[in-house]
Amino acid sequence: MTDRVQEILSWYGADNPGTLTNLARLLTHGALAGTGKMVILPVDQGFEHGPARSFAPNPDAYDPRYHFELAIESGQIPLILKVNDHDVLQEESDPMQALTGSVGDALRLGCVGIGFTIYPASMHRLEMYGQIRAIAEEARRYGLVVVIWSYPRGSGLSKPGETATDVTAYAAHIAAQLGAHIVKVKLPSAHIEQEVAKKVYEREKVPIGTLTDRVRHVVQSTFNGRRVVIFSGGPMQERDDVAFEEVRAIRDGGGFGSIIGRNSFQRKKPEALKFLKTIMDIYAA
Amino acid sequence: MTDRVQEILSWYGADNPGTLTNLARLLTHGALAGTGKMVILPVDQGFEHGPARSFAPNPDAYDPRYHFELAIESGQIPLILKVNDHDVLQEESDPMQALTGSVGDALRLGCVGIGFTIYPASMHRLEMYGQIRAIAEEARRYGLVVVIWSYPRGSGLSKPGETATDVTAYAAHIAAQLGAHIVKVKLPSAHIEQEVAKKVYEREKVPIGTLTDRVRHVVQSTFNGRRVVIFSGGPMQERDDVAFEEVRAIRDGGGFGSIIGRNSFQRKKPEALKFLKTIMDIYAA
Amino acid sequence: MTDRVQEILSWYGADNPGTLTNLARLLTHGALAGTGKMVILPVDQGFEHGPARSFAPNPDAYDPRYHFELAIESGQIPLILKVNDHDVLQEESDPMQALTGSVGDALRLGCVGIGFTIYPASMHRLEMYGQIRAIAEEARRYGLVVVIWSYPRGSGLSKPGETATDVTAYAAHIAAQLGAHIVKVKLPSAHIEQEVAKKVYEREKVPIGTLTDRVRHVVQSTFNGRRVVIFSGGPMQERDDVAFEEVRAIRDGGGFGSIIGRNSFQRKKPEALKFLKTIMDIYAA
Amino acid sequence: MTDRVQEILSWYGADNPGTLTNLARLLTHGALAGTGKMVILPVDQGFEHGPARSFAPNPDAYDPRYHFELAIESGQIPLILKVNDHDVLQEESDPMQALTGSVGDALRLGCVGIGFTIYPASMHRLEMYGQIRAIAEEARRYGLVVVIWSYPRGSGLSKPGETATDVTAYAAHIAAQLGAHIVKVKLPSAHIEQEVAKKVYEREKVPIGTLTDRVRHVVQSTFNGRRVVIFSGGPMQERDDVAFEEVRAIRDGGGFGSIIGRNSFQRKKPEALKFLKTIMDIYAA
Amino acid sequence: MTDRVQEILSWYGADNPGTLTNLARLLTHGALAGTGKMVILPVDQGFEHGPARSFAPNPDAYDPRYHFELAIESGQIPLILKVNDHDVLQEESDPMQALTGSVGDALRLGCVGIGFTIYPASMHRLEMYGQIRAIAEEARRYGLVVVIWSYPRGSGLSKPGETATDVTAYAAHIAAQLGAHIVKVKLPSAHIEQEVAKKVYEREKVPIGTLTDRVRHVVQSTFNGRRVVIFSGGPMQERDDVAFEEVRAIRDGGGFGSIIGRNSFQRKKPEALKFLKTIMDIYAA
Repeated sequence: MTDRVQEILSWYGADNPGTLTNLARLLTHGALAGTGKMVILPVDQGFEHGPARSFAPNPDAYDPRYHFELAIESGQIPLILKVNDHDVLQEESDPMQALTGSVGDALRLGCVGIGFTIYPASMHRLEMYGQIRAIAEEARRYGLVVVIWSYPRGSGLSKPGETATDVTAYAAHIAAQLGAHIVKVKLPSAHIEQEVAKKVYEREKVPIGTLTDRVRHVVQSTFNGRRVVIFSGGPMQERDDVAFEEVRAIRDGGGFGSIIGRNSFQRKKPEALKFLKTIMDIYAA
Repeated sequence: MTDRVQEILSWYGADNPGTLTNLARLLTHGALAGTGKMVILPVDQGFEHGPARSFAPNPDAYDPRYHFELAIESGQIPLILKVNDHDVLQEESDPMQALTGSVGDALRLGCVGIGFTIYPASMHRLEMYGQIRAIAEEARRYGLVVVIWSYPRGSGLSKPGETATDVTAYAAHIAAQLGAHIVKVKLPSAHIEQEVAKKVYEREKVPIGTLTDRVRHVVQSTFNGRRVVIFSGGPMQERDDVAFEEVRAIRDGGGFGSIIGRNSFQRKKPEALKFLKTIMDIYAA
Repeated sequence: MTDRVQEILSWYGADNPGTLTNLARLLTHGALAGTGKMVILPVDQGFEHGPARSFAPNPDAYDPRYHFELAIESGQIPLILKVNDHDVLQEESDPMQALTGSVGDALRLGCVGIGFTIYPASMHRLEMYGQIRAIAEEARRYGLVVVIWSYPRGSGLSKPGETATDVTAYAAHIAAQLGAHIVKVKLPSAHIEQEVAKKVYEREKVPIGTLTDRVRHVVQSTFNGRRVVIFSGGPMQERDDVAFEEVRAIRDGGGFGSIIGRNSFQRKKPEALKFLKTIMDIYAA
Repeated sequence: MTDRVQEILSWYGADNPGTLTNLARLLTHGALAGTGKMVILPVDQGFEHGPARSFAPNPDAYDPRYHFELAIESGQIPLILKVNDHDVLQEESDPMQALTGSVGDALRLGCVGIGFTIYPASMHRLEMYGQIRAIAEEARRYGLVVVIWSYPRGSGLSKPGETATDVTAYAAHIAAQLGAHIVKVKLPSAHIEQEVAKKVYEREKVPIGTLTDRVRHVVQSTFNGRRVVIFSGGPMQERDDVAFEEVRAIRDGGGFGSIIGRNSFQRKKPEALKFLKTIMDIYAA
Repeated sequence: MTDRVQEILSWYGADNPGTLTNLARLLTHGALAGTGKMVILPVDQGFEHGPARSFAPNPDAYDPRYHFELAIESGQIPLILKVNDHDVLQEESDPMQALTGSVGDALRLGCVGIGFTIYPASMHRLEMYGQIRAIAEEARRYGLVVVIWSYPRGSGLSKPGETATDVTAYAAHIAAQLGAHIVKVKLPSAHIEQEVAKKVYEREKVPIGTLTDRVRHVVQSTFNGRRVVIFSGGPMQERDDVAFEEVRAIRDGGGFGSIIGRNSFQRKKPEALKFLKTIMDIYAA
């Protein structure tokens, strides 16, 4: 256990030894063990976007075991069970998720934690907040880590607003308040969505000019950096160097890592492993 | 227990011995015992379409015992209790089902599993997903098999979209993710419903030209073929050879069997038994 | 216990001895004991239509004890507790009932069973189906009989459709599927409501020309006659011979009896007893 | 315990000794002890109408202890806990109440019973009926008395219809059916709201010409007078003799008493005590 | 324990020793210990308004530990856990809060009580009333203090109505009725919102001319002053003397203290401590 891991664990003073143990497991496995950084491989895209859109580019990925292989070969694999999900078979201005797993499932399957998505800005957000509060209370009682995907979406926002800096920082803060040990948000753009917020950013001269600045602001917004915040990569990009540039910005802004799904499992395995290694080397630098 | 049955059981590593035993019972009874194929006789049409529409063509079928006779004479009969149902006394653009049975009922009646219908693309789908998640967790704890009927319907789709290949594959994938041991879908048409999916099918050249191709794609979409997927026959068809052709396509595409209701019990029994035998011979070939 | 009662009990093979005992109590009491027929005296009209409309024609009936006297003097009185109710203080296109009693109440009051109303064709029907499923499971566990009043109403139907033959048969079938030991429907008219059903009735030449035919069809629609189906009388009619004619049709069509409320308790007691005796004599014939 | 109290208790044959004991407590305390009459002092007006509107006319009444003093000095004070409430900070065509107390609270505070308001004719009435059914079952199990305030309100009625005789009688009947030991309604006007009811009142010549007639009709509508029905007074009236006249009509029509809130606590205490004494003398006469 | 604290405790006769102990803890800590006054430091603004709007003016406040330091250095710190919250990522005419904490959380974290926000005048108010009723019952059973933030908002009110005197007094009364030991409202303006209330204020000549008058009226409206009522400060004001003037009015009107959030933590710490000391000196005077 490195000093950095011990420092991170010290931020979670309200948690029981079981949860701290599982958080330590996450931080002491794989290529980034002990660095305080992590790369998470999510495999919910089949449900969230449909199987062909997710797996046809690399049909090996239809098989759930492939994702385990990919994770194990690029490091190791403590498991997090995503307990809610959503599909795209309905267009909704105010999305909601379905409960598709439970704390009991996570324990039965030997997971170190659970994952949960909230949509701040959806009209259904209060219901999602209430659900994760109850599930998080149960999960923590059983020593599990709680990861919250906080994706602002819904009729309360414009489309650019979904990744605006003020909204992303707000979404990260809400996730932390709802009990997340690990907060997952999208990379923030330079846009500011809410007028009342804009005035404050300008008056207080909050630096948000570069992606590094914005990552730092989001991390600060989650208890002044005392929560693990990781960022998502989105769909496979044209050029890998764009992705690597983003990872450097996350690292330099004090972010704790990335979630990389389609960008890895939609490549052939050797290529995916190389891609992931480059990213982990950046984080470890 | 044949090698094939053992292979199929090996796909369900997260299940307890009770559930595996019941799944084995399903796979080792009847004319197709040991082949890894099955033909299921559903008897919910009275509720789903009304009694006269279902049973008047062969009034013997008004009597529930008739269906048992039919099943026993054409093989054997492990029971699956359907625990939700729907009627057609209201026209709804976004259908939902009523809970009409329970895990307790299934155990009391000696069933090997439960059945549950979801309507992906209905505005009520998230509620149905949440229901089956909870019921499936209870069922698996008690060693029951979970069968999910996944019928995309609702305002999220066009009428042809209900059986589109992309949508059927998506529906099968969702059912598998929700914990189905056995997934039941309709036979997929060559139509592609969602524009974002269409691009992927074309770019990746996913073969869906023949019914066999499409069945194979749907089976692949459920954990790369590591779930039992069966297909429904729909109403009694003009010519039996069309039905037999479909069964051959299911078999050749790697499908695991059929659900045949009206097409069997709306015939006189000798004719039905002959019809079912022909189908089972195709599967056993 | 007559052969006929034993035959009827044999239809309920999935029930426990407590429920069979209570069903036997219903079938072995009163003037029709042992015949397999029954006449039920309902006293929910005060709630359903208002007290003055129900009891002012015969003010003795304001007193609940009067109904007991009437029942005892015209036979005997095993009790069924109606556990949901509805009033007419709101006009609704899609009616619903309120839960107004429980299985615990029925047991505490020494009843042999519970009664429950569903409105197939109401937009709220799925909720009612789910309620009675759960209540019926509890009731059967405690050895109670389940009676379902199945009254098709709601925006899914035209007014004549509420008593159409296809709809009444469908409603009776649904009640049986939901676990009713005794099904209560209205007398079916010659109207056919649903186009898809009409085609089947015509193609299969289902006889529905006379009331006797229609009663027989409804009885057949509930597990080929293996459930007790009784019919309601509606408001007090101008001429008693119309009511008696209906009772003969119920008997000749294989119906199991009548529910007669206003037509008995809105008369003076001697007249009511004479009226009920005539009806029971018809059934006993 | 007087003969009258014993007679009243005899009407509640389905209740346990605890509930009968508490009902006896209500009937054997205060100035009207043993007469079978009662005057109830309600103190929910602060919640229902706002504090200034309720208590500013007599600021002593802001203090909850004042109401106890008033009750004790004008008799004695068994307590009933009102477990639901409503405010007037929203205009609603179909009102609903919030649950604001529980059976556990009533027991903890030493109450003899609980009070509950229903709004027959509101679109939310079925939910309120279901709530009080469940709460009443719990209350009776613990030996508490159940008092139901039955106030017809909502889009199902015209404004005069809220106190129409047919509607008031219907509302009292529903309360009795829902398990009320004591039913509380408003004084009925000569208006008849529902056309179908009007025909019956006219055909059967139900006497409703005087307030005494109408009270008698309402009392008859609750199990032929076998439930305790009390009437509310409404806001403080111009002249006390109008209130006294109403009390005489309640008494002569067989009513069991009054609920008097604002008309007592909005006066100075000596005046209130004198006012209440006059009313109780009328009832005792 | 001072006489004043004992007097205040004497108002809560229905509470158990655990709750009284915790209430005493609140009243005997910090600079105002024993005076019966209190200043509460709320830290929910990050959730309620967003992190940058709340903390950018003084970035130290991003760190939750800063608020503890601020509280400890300006007195001491018994904790109250706010168990519901709301964000501003949706514009709603009828706001609602999400459940974000539990009684179990409050106990686990060593808090003396829970906090809960209601929005009287929102269409969702009845649901919030029902939630806090149930949570308050649980909290009191475990010896916790209940603090209710009563903020009238929603389509039932005009914008000025949200702080109108009649509405604020009503909101405070409702909070007390719902079981609050401590009631938190906004400072009332001279506006009267409801016509029916206006007549009473005028007829009874209720003094509401000065802020002191209005505070006194609000305090009187919560059980004649037998509940602890505190007032909120709102956003940081231009001039501190306005804030101090308000505090004097609260004190002179019999109010029990202030909640001061942004006005303290948005300043640098030395300035904040000085500001808070001035306020506490006013209260202690």
